[in-house]
Amino acid sequence: MEFISGIRKKDCCELKDLLEKRSTEPVKLNGCIHSIRDMGEFAFVLVRKRDGLVQCVLEKANPNCTINNLKEGMAIELEGVLNQEERAPHGFEIRIDRVKVLSAPKEGAIFPLPISKWKMNASLEAKLEYRPISLRNIRERAVFKIQEGIVRAFREFLYSQGFTEIRTPKIVAGNAEGGANVFKLEYFGKKAFLAQSPQFYKQTMVGIYDRVFETGPVFRAEKHNTCRHLNEYTSLDFEMGYIDGFEDVMAMETEMLRFMFDFLREKYSKELNLLDVKLPVIEGIPQVRFDEAKQLVAEKYNYKIRDPYDLQPEEEQLIGRYFKEEYDSDFVFVTHYPSKKRPFYTMDDPQDGRFTLSFDLLFKGMEITTGGQRIHDYDMQLAKMLARGMNPEDFGNFLMIHKHGMPPHGGLGIGLERFTMKLLDAANVREATMFPRDVTRLEP
Amino acid sequence: MEFISGIRKKDCCELKDLLEKRSTEPVKLNGCIHSIRDMGEFAFVLVRKRDGLVQCVLEKANPNCTINNLKEGMAIELEGVLNQEERAPHGFEIRIDRVKVLSAPKEGAIFPLPISKWKMNASLEAKLEYRPISLRNIRERAVFKIQEGIVRAFREFLYSQGFTEIRTPKIVAGNAEGGANVFKLEYFGKKAFLAQSPQFYKQTMVGIYDRVFETGPVFRAEKHNTCRHLNEYTSLDFEMGYIDGFEDVMAMETEMLRFMFDFLREKYSKELNLLDVKLPVIEGIPQVRFDEAKQLVAEKYNYKIRDPYDLQPEEEQLIGRYFKEEYDSDFVFVTHYPSKKRPFYTMDDPQDGRFTLSFDLLFKGMEITTGGQRIHDYDMQLAKMLARGMNPEDFGNFLMIHKHGMPPHGGLGIGLERFTMKLLDAANVREATMFPRDVTRLEP
Repeated sequence: MEFISGIRKKDCCELKDLLEKRSTEPVKLNGCIHSIRDMGEFAFVLVRKRDGLVQCVLEKANPNCTINNLKEGMAIELEGVLNQEERAPHGFEIRIDRVKVLSAPKEGAIFPLPISKWKMNASLEAKLEYRPISLRNIRERAVFKIQEGIVRAFREFLYSQGFTEIRTPKIVAGNAEGGANVFKLEYFGKKAFLAQSPQFYKQTMVGIYDRVFETGPVFRAEKHNTCRHLNEYTSLDFEMGYIDGFEDVMAMETEMLRFMFDFLREKYSKELNLLDVKLPVIEGIPQVRFDEAKQLVAEKYNYKIRDPYDLQPEEEQLIGRYFKEEYDSDFVFVTHYPSKKRPFYTMDDPQDGRFTLSFDLLFKGMEITTGGQRIHDYDMQLAKMLARGMNPEDFGNFLMIHKHGMPPHGGLGIGLERFTMKLLDAANVREATMFPRDVTRLEP
Repeated sequence: MEFISGIRKKDCCELKDLLEKRSTEPVKLNGCIHSIRDMGEFAFVLVRKRDGLVQCVLEKANPNCTINNLKEGMAIELEGVLNQEERAPHGFEIRIDRVKVLSAPKEGAIFPLPISKWKMNASLEAKLEYRPISLRNIRERAVFKIQEGIVRAFREFLYSQGFTEIRTPKIVAGNAEGGANVFKLEYFGKKAFLAQSPQFYKQTMVGIYDRVFETGPVFRAEKHNTCRHLNEYTSLDFEMGYIDGFEDVMAMETEMLRFMFDFLREKYSKELNLLDVKLPVIEGIPQVRFDEAKQLVAEKYNYKIRDPYDLQPEEEQLIGRYFKEEYDSDFVFVTHYPSKKRPFYTMDDPQDGRFTLSFDLLFKGMEITTGGQRIHDYDMQLAKMLARGMNPEDFGNFLMIHKHGMPPHGGLGIGLERFTMKLLDAANVREATMFPRDVTRLEP
């Protein structure tokens, strides 16, 4: 009987192993041929590995390998000798001795985009059309490495604060956020929906673990086709019990963001440098009431308020600009949104029921978080549903938690792709989405 | 202007703070009243916190608080004095001085299940019907704490091995796993599906990061209503390039499992003890060919082979039993599944094209992982699709990766809930699913 006992040591070096080698040491490595540059007597063969490029040099006189047998896109394994070379990436290059081709692209295939260039200079449309290939570009792939770091930091921080990670269903019977923006599907003869948010479930799980979070997909059937909307995106959600007020939720987010930027600085500096990303420094995040914020920017920028109950995207931009100019802050919490613009589970302000104990976080003038305190009392939740003409019987499973006791609680959801977009100063949320889904795009 | 600068220190103790206190120290804590036991002169009030129960004692003579004002399910904040008490959970109890009620259940509400009991003795059906409440039971919630640990360990291990975490769309245009078991939905006038697996996307991303993983929901419209099927479940997927063969994938999984059990032992011992879980010890995992495995159990257990191309659930059980009896192993890799039972992207065995370079991992006699080597060559992939009567034009975005070069690669998917079920020796996968979705169940 044969047994699998664990990972076997391979003789191919990873980039970190190569960095520890001395000059003239023989090495073996594998990777993808990212580009070939013919220099006459020799050729530069750039090998793409998961953590960077390795410059290799193939002499034309090499008896074991001719340049004509190599092609961009091939996966190869090569043997050679490492040499210090200041001008090469990471300060070394490899003089090729032998090359073994592991796999080759289709005969005659031509890359649809110049992925080996530093900047591809391709339209967003072209990059998305050829996403499986365009992401092979070093800078394109760095975007999603940073996105990995954002999610990791979110989780790491919340674990450290006693949160439990949950997994809630995406096929649901009800519609948490209200409105018509919901994808419908047939579920064994029943009508079902794709979850617009894990709202009901995360509140439910506060009754079990006090503090919970989830990082998963959410689905919005919105017909907006803008630079900041997606129909499927990743929501970073947390929800916490035993709060003294919704300020506790904002405080948790502030601390999380500070942790996240430290985490990225420590573990993702290579990618941040590749994309020239400047991480914000968070001292304290200003908080301003919704109605005050509207007033402030109307006065300072001579903006005419059209809808007193909602923030236009231009108003969000102006609020962002105001707090950057006046307080040098990339972030601002806008609080006390009007009750009629917030969902039925939001707690109204006991001081003034027209407003709610809720907030948005704006980052460089764009909403990236919505959060607030939720109603925990059964009678209060029932009354708010009835006042909105909702049928409580449709929400029996949700009301079950209030019926049997819930601590005061609140939470938030962060749009991962939008957050990444603003962090990277991208112009379109699709730049920060691996495989975007929008009104016209279902592939790749 | 007000600023949110970060988490404010609260004066309520968490369990870990309480464990550091001395006898007779005054303390303050909050939590949910898990149970009240009237002892005559005094009452035991068990307070449920996220990491355990705290025994509190309320004297009937207490002038500040009467027992009649307290109810199970209330969220409270209490002040009292800590005392060592060997018979109490964690070795201490709190003599209550004052209680502040933070929130209360609905007047007159009666718990549908006895959640404060050690074992609820409720049917699975009842537990699922009242899931938002039944999970408040200490042992029920421990299941999903362990599940958190499984996912954390999976990620932690793969990060350490140079894998990149990806997020792929769940609304898709094509159908990776074949067959009719797919949920359909209308997507802005187009036909779309819910992803049965991230297969195409994870292979695609190997071309970008060499090694990738994802932990997300997958959807199967299977009509089976068995103790081991779900229609939505969490798939732990990884995919790796530059493999020498599919043994590299099995080796990575073996090492991952060993890491995972160490991780659980270190960080989740409280929950493992609560549920009396014995973690398997992995020396080496036996591997056996599909056809040999069938033969072995047919001979040893006198089992009649009905379908030479598939494993019946009973055969899986017998294979599990065989390797437990013969090699004392809870795990066994069954390799070289018949080609016609595996999807079109699976690499056939060059030695014998009727079989594939693929495997399942059985855990205590149940399949919990399917994996194998994938086809990386364009012409080979095209030929296999044509031989199966598939139209390559339907798979243009997938074939794009082969066209432009893919390293030899392979990977696997682990069913999280099924894995949890077997680890905990549960009889039904729904016991290990927070909010299961099956043919009859769309709520809660």
